[in-house]
Amino acid sequence: MMKAVQVVGYGEKPRLAEVPAPEVTAPFDVVVRIGGAGVCRTDLHILEGQWAEKSGVALPYTIGHENAGWVHAAGSAVTHVAEGDKVILHPLLTCGLCRACRSGDDVHCAQSRFPGIDTDGGYAEYLKTSARSVVRIDDSLEPADVAALADAGLTAYHAAAKAARVLRPGDRCVVLGAGGLGHIGIQVLKALTPAELVVVDRNADAVKLAESIGADHGVVADGGQVDEVLTLTGGHGAEVVLDFVGEGGATKDGVRMLRRAGDYHVVGYGENLDVPTIDIISAELDFIGNLVGSYTDLCELMALAAQGRVRLHTAKYPLERFQDALDDLDAGRVRGRAILTP
Amino acid sequence: MMKAVQVVGYGEKPRLAEVPAPEVTAPFDVVVRIGGAGVCRTDLHILEGQWAEKSGVALPYTIGHENAGWVHAAGSAVTHVAEGDKVILHPLLTCGLCRACRSGDDVHCAQSRFPGIDTDGGYAEYLKTSARSVVRIDDSLEPADVAALADAGLTAYHAAAKAARVLRPGDRCVVLGAGGLGHIGIQVLKALTPAELVVVDRNADAVKLAESIGADHGVVADGGQVDEVLTLTGGHGAEVVLDFVGEGGATKDGVRMLRRAGDYHVVGYGENLDVPTIDIISAELDFIGNLVGSYTDLCELMALAAQGRVRLHTAKYPLERFQDALDDLDAGRVRGRAILTP
Amino acid sequence: MMKAVQVVGYGEKPRLAEVPAPEVTAPFDVVVRIGGAGVCRTDLHILEGQWAEKSGVALPYTIGHENAGWVHAAGSAVTHVAEGDKVILHPLLTCGLCRACRSGDDVHCAQSRFPGIDTDGGYAEYLKTSARSVVRIDDSLEPADVAALADAGLTAYHAAAKAARVLRPGDRCVVLGAGGLGHIGIQVLKALTPAELVVVDRNADAVKLAESIGADHGVVADGGQVDEVLTLTGGHGAEVVLDFVGEGGATKDGVRMLRRAGDYHVVGYGENLDVPTIDIISAELDFIGNLVGSYTDLCELMALAAQGRVRLHTAKYPLERFQDALDDLDAGRVRGRAILTP
Amino acid sequence: MMKAVQVVGYGEKPRLAEVPAPEVTAPFDVVVRIGGAGVCRTDLHILEGQWAEKSGVALPYTIGHENAGWVHAAGSAVTHVAEGDKVILHPLLTCGLCRACRSGDDVHCAQSRFPGIDTDGGYAEYLKTSARSVVRIDDSLEPADVAALADAGLTAYHAAAKAARVLRPGDRCVVLGAGGLGHIGIQVLKALTPAELVVVDRNADAVKLAESIGADHGVVADGGQVDEVLTLTGGHGAEVVLDFVGEGGATKDGVRMLRRAGDYHVVGYGENLDVPTIDIISAELDFIGNLVGSYTDLCELMALAAQGRVRLHTAKYPLERFQDALDDLDAGRVRGRAILTP
Repeated sequence: MMKAVQVVGYGEKPRLAEVPAPEVTAPFDVVVRIGGAGVCRTDLHILEGQWAEKSGVALPYTIGHENAGWVHAAGSAVTHVAEGDKVILHPLLTCGLCRACRSGDDVHCAQSRFPGIDTDGGYAEYLKTSARSVVRIDDSLEPADVAALADAGLTAYHAAAKAARVLRPGDRCVVLGAGGLGHIGIQVLKALTPAELVVVDRNADAVKLAESIGADHGVVADGGQVDEVLTLTGGHGAEVVLDFVGEGGATKDGVRMLRRAGDYHVVGYGENLDVPTIDIISAELDFIGNLVGSYTDLCELMALAAQGRVRLHTAKYPLERFQDALDDLDAGRVRGRAILTP
Repeated sequence: MMKAVQVVGYGEKPRLAEVPAPEVTAPFDVVVRIGGAGVCRTDLHILEGQWAEKSGVALPYTIGHENAGWVHAAGSAVTHVAEGDKVILHPLLTCGLCRACRSGDDVHCAQSRFPGIDTDGGYAEYLKTSARSVVRIDDSLEPADVAALADAGLTAYHAAAKAARVLRPGDRCVVLGAGGLGHIGIQVLKALTPAELVVVDRNADAVKLAESIGADHGVVADGGQVDEVLTLTGGHGAEVVLDFVGEGGATKDGVRMLRRAGDYHVVGYGENLDVPTIDIISAELDFIGNLVGSYTDLCELMALAAQGRVRLHTAKYPLERFQDALDDLDAGRVRGRAILTP
Repeated sequence: MMKAVQVVGYGEKPRLAEVPAPEVTAPFDVVVRIGGAGVCRTDLHILEGQWAEKSGVALPYTIGHENAGWVHAAGSAVTHVAEGDKVILHPLLTCGLCRACRSGDDVHCAQSRFPGIDTDGGYAEYLKTSARSVVRIDDSLEPADVAALADAGLTAYHAAAKAARVLRPGDRCVVLGAGGLGHIGIQVLKALTPAELVVVDRNADAVKLAESIGADHGVVADGGQVDEVLTLTGGHGAEVVLDFVGEGGATKDGVRMLRRAGDYHVVGYGENLDVPTIDIISAELDFIGNLVGSYTDLCELMALAAQGRVRLHTAKYPLERFQDALDDLDAGRVRGRAILTP
Repeated sequence: MMKAVQVVGYGEKPRLAEVPAPEVTAPFDVVVRIGGAGVCRTDLHILEGQWAEKSGVALPYTIGHENAGWVHAAGSAVTHVAEGDKVILHPLLTCGLCRACRSGDDVHCAQSRFPGIDTDGGYAEYLKTSARSVVRIDDSLEPADVAALADAGLTAYHAAAKAARVLRPGDRCVVLGAGGLGHIGIQVLKALTPAELVVVDRNADAVKLAESIGADHGVVADGGQVDEVLTLTGGHGAEVVLDFVGEGGATKDGVRMLRRAGDYHVVGYGENLDVPTIDIISAELDFIGNLVGSYTDLCELMALAAQGRVRLHTAKYPLERFQDALDDLDAGRVRGRAILTP
């Protein structure tokens, strides 16, 4: 048996329960002893019931979709990790057989599952996952320190790495939003490209923080942000805009900050992207969607973490204090990310 | 002196005038004897005054932006064509010095001009252009037969060639619109990729024509087109949608025809692209703008034309009958493209 | 029990034996009823003992590495094929967990096995393979007709598809060698690119055959082949050379046929590639190695086969007549590929 | 009139002469007042007569092919620089009209010229060049400090930037040779990629210097370098080898340091690349030639220089002391690069 935090009803508080500890029953199974489980705003939404219909999960079940720990047991076919290895978990369980999986693009797996959302997750002592979802991390890293990179961080990495592929020295990249994802995105961009980074956020403190981790220019979004970015980019706009906001008018602003033939990366979401086709073709703009990263992306992000190039501020709570973590998150009292630890 | 068809006032008919024939005055100048000048819907819009403010051109001036002919005279620095060569003209005059020009992306030239729109064009006996805009064509091709590929055809080539880069055997590509551009786009796609082509048009005759030039499946857009495309693509949608329509609800339909991680190419325009950001990120869609092709694109399109892979139906009119050509176009009496000839 | 053709000793003839039929014992196992097994020159080499040390396989074992058939039984985790499906087998068994596998480049799997070489192959009634190695083929295709595409054909596809990525309309591609691989390569290139194909072979009949399946120019390698290719390419050489020979001086010739900034694809092997570094840098040439294709490549090749764009001439022998097939191959009496059938 | 250092005979010392100062005579001409001219080993070879036949230049003429300075006068069509602007000169004069030039790959221009080699160069007060060869540099940079980046540095940038395109976090890149080019290459790689850099050189001081500018591991090539690199790369070899040596057995060593599916960049030259084709195909290796960079590459390198990411140690000599500079270079007394200044 083990301890696990379970959703028992929507609109109710989750409950700490004793449940059977998972066991290896198939060749590619991996059971992980959880070292850190990120507490994410999505968890609040799950508890409110926003995901009930979409996930179709049967209650009770264990939440937690940003997980890292140590390999506790592994099936007979598992060759790339061994008992005791430190690992982070890719957020999806993927089939490995569909066309997307076979071409390295496993995020678009035709039949993926999502632990913590539609099956048992990591607010627990142990989690059962698949060999395909386990990334070994460097000895210098601690599971509780990197757990929150498993989903939010991985999304930011994916988008920033894709954006960086077209950025050349002398180019400019605008980052909209210096919150959780933007904070990781900025660090990733600094590691991958010498392009100039212009970071825009409504919150002056977030802009300052962005500058402290590598933004070349910070812009407080107080109404004059489009003009300010145009001034910073010689009147032409930036080669790339990376939009971690996607609501509150961010896309309208962002498109105006984009240079001819530029790339607009959609990461944050909420509002509609609503652009005249005449503008899309006459400036030949690209709008690029970004979901969470692939297994390979997670390996690369962990390489950056091991080099100290990507760091995350965390507030740790013992598993039993899950409700405090959720409450603090809900009340805006968490700086960085809240992490449940054993 | 030479004959030229000039815009003398907006809302008025153009007039055939005697004007000075252009001469070579600088090292990179090329004077072309016009063999064919495409008559385009844009010419009707120019005459109505829709472009007056945007182009800022001073009247009178000579219209005609789809031009081909023979080199009549060339400046001292011109090395790639010689007097008598058959040539087609890239629609833009580009500087050759800006960053876009230097990286092969001359369509985004920082200071391009557009003969026939903002300077003298090809409804004339001669046209003065630059060495940078002249593409030599194969001896087997006639200027009057290819002139209309210079702008509309080049746009279709550019989009289709970009789309084809990601299409693999077994993939599906939906083409929305089998009119002027779509007709070229289909031929280009057949030349560049073995992907299955599904062509959608409101006009059943256009769909039949599309099938006759290589479409694997034709779909008449009568309300059930989205479902029909989904059926043809195994319920998943197509890897690529190439939208030559861009109005009348085409984009709403087109997005629904797109597979996860698919590419949506915007070519036609009119309405807004209006898509929830949540849909863009959760299916990880890309929306890709397409302007006219580069000089290199035009060289490639002419290679396909010389191989007989891209053909265009034309209706030829002597230059003096320009008004008949414009009237026929306006009344929908032209099959294929109307071309003015010497 | 089942019939299988086994290597019982090097330098000896193989023997038809009764051996236990394979069974599904793990979730990703697939047992295939063989419909066709290609008889390849490598099989002759195995019997001579050339692979004994490298493969380290214990005798007796079943040879045959180009296999297709029907799914006979599948493990509990197999979701992409079902009993009765027609399938072709990727030649490698790959782990699915290493970095290469996870990025879609499974040919470089860190721990692959090779049925027919280092474990039991397909000269048999049944073969046990993995879900990762099974590609479903179109209903219109027959296993015995496509089996030989599983290895030789897949290698040709991989190289031709990689080469085609840089070929634009108007470019030229030289194919050295119009034998087994070259024959497939030419068909693949015709499907993927409108570039002009110049095919060079010492055998005039092979050159004629090449022209009949799409080569734009055939050149008999009788000593003047380099000059002839240079004449056909305007004196500049070709953008791409695809070398299916790799011995007998082919590489020295081939490099001279290459244009500045061209790509030289090494597929055939035997001699050393021996080129002055000054020539590599001053013409900025690339030399690109090509191994067998990936699982995804095989899916794409099967799409082309289903479209009728890639065809192979085969000579079929019942399994019991394996020795005739081997003898005919050794004596040069097989046109196309010899295939063992049930 | 102006001062210029001219080659007057092979095997003789060059001579300081009074020659006519160049003037703008065509629309795209640019006359540059030289602020720095790099003194390169190639200049010694020119004086010895090694280039006499290849260049076909008529004596006397002015040498110097690494030049930077200020725009002194510009022709009527020059729009991207103005009198007084600080500029660096791309080493080639290119036509701007051939296919290579039009696709941004101007280094492969069909009719380029090379000032300082086959026409007058920059050991002089003024140099006449073309608008196409002039890159404006940041105000913070001085012509004499960057001049040597115009050719040697540009070659290193081109190769390093091409190599960096495939390097992902966690990858390893081996740099062979930490001399002039390698020194720039290391700085460029650090700016463009977080991949680990392993630098190999025979000279222990060069290895130390490499470590001081960003090499993650330095290896002295004393016979055990291949094993040491394999140890540093987990026994697999590196994803990329960048060979700035190309002689003395470097390529044999380098190939053994390369991982399966790895890229070998040839930059230095001297010996033959001599590799069994079986090794090329079975490990699927690529060998990639590298010539000097394009105009766009030079713009990007200057962006890195302006950011302080690429620095070069220089020893400056007044133009009149050209013979001291040449003698010091020949005797190995120059640390970094010797530069002639006004």
